[in-house]
Amino acid sequence: MNSNPHIAIAGATGAVGQEFLRVLHQRNFPMGKLKLLASARSAGKPVEFNGTTYRVEQLTEDSFKDVDLALFSLDSSISKTFAPIAAGAGALVVDNSSAFRQTKDIPLVVPEVNPEAVQGLAIGQGGIVANPNCSTIIMLVPVTPLHRAAGVRRIVVSTYQAASGAGAKAMAELEQQTREVLDDKPPTCNVFAQQYAFNLFSHDSDIGPDGYNTEEVKMVRETHKIWDDTAVRITATCIRVPVMRAHAESINLEFDQPLNRHQAEEILRDAPGVCIVNDWQNNRFPTPLDATGKDDVLVGRIRDDASQASGNGTRPKNGGGGIDLFVCGDQLRKGAALNAVQIAELLL
Amino acid sequence: MNSNPHIAIAGATGAVGQEFLRVLHQRNFPMGKLKLLASARSAGKPVEFNGTTYRVEQLTEDSFKDVDLALFSLDSSISKTFAPIAAGAGALVVDNSSAFRQTKDIPLVVPEVNPEAVQGLAIGQGGIVANPNCSTIIMLVPVTPLHRAAGVRRIVVSTYQAASGAGAKAMAELEQQTREVLDDKPPTCNVFAQQYAFNLFSHDSDIGPDGYNTEEVKMVRETHKIWDDTAVRITATCIRVPVMRAHAESINLEFDQPLNRHQAEEILRDAPGVCIVNDWQNNRFPTPLDATGKDDVLVGRIRDDASQASGNGTRPKNGGGGIDLFVCGDQLRKGAALNAVQIAELLL
Repeated sequence: MNSNPHIAIAGATGAVGQEFLRVLHQRNFPMGKLKLLASARSAGKPVEFNGTTYRVEQLTEDSFKDVDLALFSLDSSISKTFAPIAAGAGALVVDNSSAFRQTKDIPLVVPEVNPEAVQGLAIGQGGIVANPNCSTIIMLVPVTPLHRAAGVRRIVVSTYQAASGAGAKAMAELEQQTREVLDDKPPTCNVFAQQYAFNLFSHDSDIGPDGYNTEEVKMVRETHKIWDDTAVRITATCIRVPVMRAHAESINLEFDQPLNRHQAEEILRDAPGVCIVNDWQNNRFPTPLDATGKDDVLVGRIRDDASQASGNGTRPKNGGGGIDLFVCGDQLRKGAALNAVQIAELLL
Repeated sequence: MNSNPHIAIAGATGAVGQEFLRVLHQRNFPMGKLKLLASARSAGKPVEFNGTTYRVEQLTEDSFKDVDLALFSLDSSISKTFAPIAAGAGALVVDNSSAFRQTKDIPLVVPEVNPEAVQGLAIGQGGIVANPNCSTIIMLVPVTPLHRAAGVRRIVVSTYQAASGAGAKAMAELEQQTREVLDDKPPTCNVFAQQYAFNLFSHDSDIGPDGYNTEEVKMVRETHKIWDDTAVRITATCIRVPVMRAHAESINLEFDQPLNRHQAEEILRDAPGVCIVNDWQNNRFPTPLDATGKDDVLVGRIRDDASQASGNGTRPKNGGGGIDLFVCGDQLRKGAALNAVQIAELLL
């Protein structure tokens, strides 16, 4: 490895690519040379970073010579081709796509949850680490400490997902459509097949024969891999809402052991990456807008699940009762760029 | 009763009041004289209906002489005063507020669910019927037929609620704020305490000591009353999203008896007030925009809840497995005005 790691950002012109730059800068990540990579279409574009203008270079097989750390935010199919090339050239790749998340021997990491999974890897030595799906990360940061305390048996989660999860073009489309609808013009639908402005819809990923879409399946399978535990039962409903860049999630938890809301709040107060916003008096709880630009996942509406108490208010015989939570996290930061940079920090 | 019922609409200038007029007209509801009532502030305002211009009159104790049917959409505290006055004057009141929903001997009715509850009442004879909360109605129209088939044991519901639930002013505020945010101006917050445009937040109703807000408690208590069954366990998380006038709900159901998604879809296909939108191939499911202006509750994402299947895909020993649904309903129509007019139709 170079004394300060040489860094390549692949997909540098996208929403997550731009966030990689901001996060590296804000966290004073040690940086040697910086290389910005993207498709031929974006090659030559100027990108300002830290007082220097960089020219975006076309991503090719030769892009990764002398690169120690490569942060990837590319389509899954392109990652599949180029991550092994970068790793073969000696770079540690943190890949934000779904290409390698379920690949055996490639760690899938949320630093607050399973940092030990990167053992044996190093910046400047070829390797791949997968960055989980944004909705999975934002759920697991608060849910994992509760799982450790009381054993999560079942999760029912419904998401409220922002435009940024579908990239910068989706964010621009939401803005453009909103202007059009306010001007009584028909909304332009390029990224999404239906109107997004003042509307919401089931996540636009492929749907399997069981009726779950890919986003929902990711939340289940990635949780199982990150926790190294397939016993927890999860059902997810993933919905896109007309919000720019932070996801919200309504999470219902069933536990093996008794855990009440006061204990849950105490655990969450000390949990890394969590900020409690649970002001009942003033009705202030997590919102996507408050989560925007923040590193922490905001957690609120922490309450004992009344549907898991028995009639007389005691816990049911067969378990430990449950907790409801409402959480918000910045999709581009903790849901993507920040988590990837935190993975790299584990290896510094 | 007059040969065609004389009708008063109390709260005629509000979003629901206006919808009452549209629904009465569209359904050819037999109408004698029509009286539009509102607060002193709105008195004298002209309202066009069916080619005639009506003048809004101030709501007073004398407003209900010779009125057979009074449709109320007022603040709960005002309903509490005037509904008994109207009933005392001989009008059948259908009240859209929460004032009487939990009052013993006042029926709380969703016509598709418990039409028998209005027995003994008649238009032109003094009486009060309570119209349930919008989120409750939209949930119960599709969930009740499944309950009858397999016995709903537990419901975990997360809502995506539109501006209209907070009235016409909230809808105007969402539009104004959206324009302001797009123009880089600070958003005007009058109805809500925080930015609504491109944001979402926990429902702005009062929060009880158990952490549930009033909207969530309504969904539980009203379901218990409408089903006449307090055994079903319910936990709700109510969230407002920047959508104009249709609510969405992500509903997870646990059953006493086995019921799979094919059986559920068959039941819902024949269910009154339900329209199935469940096109997996084209990823088209219910949206608030598609539900807008529609009488039916749109139901989709009908799937077997994977978290209730045991490891080998069979149902758990202790029950009948579960179903996930995603539903949308027009808050102003089925969630309010339409349901109230349908109650009146039961009594024609």
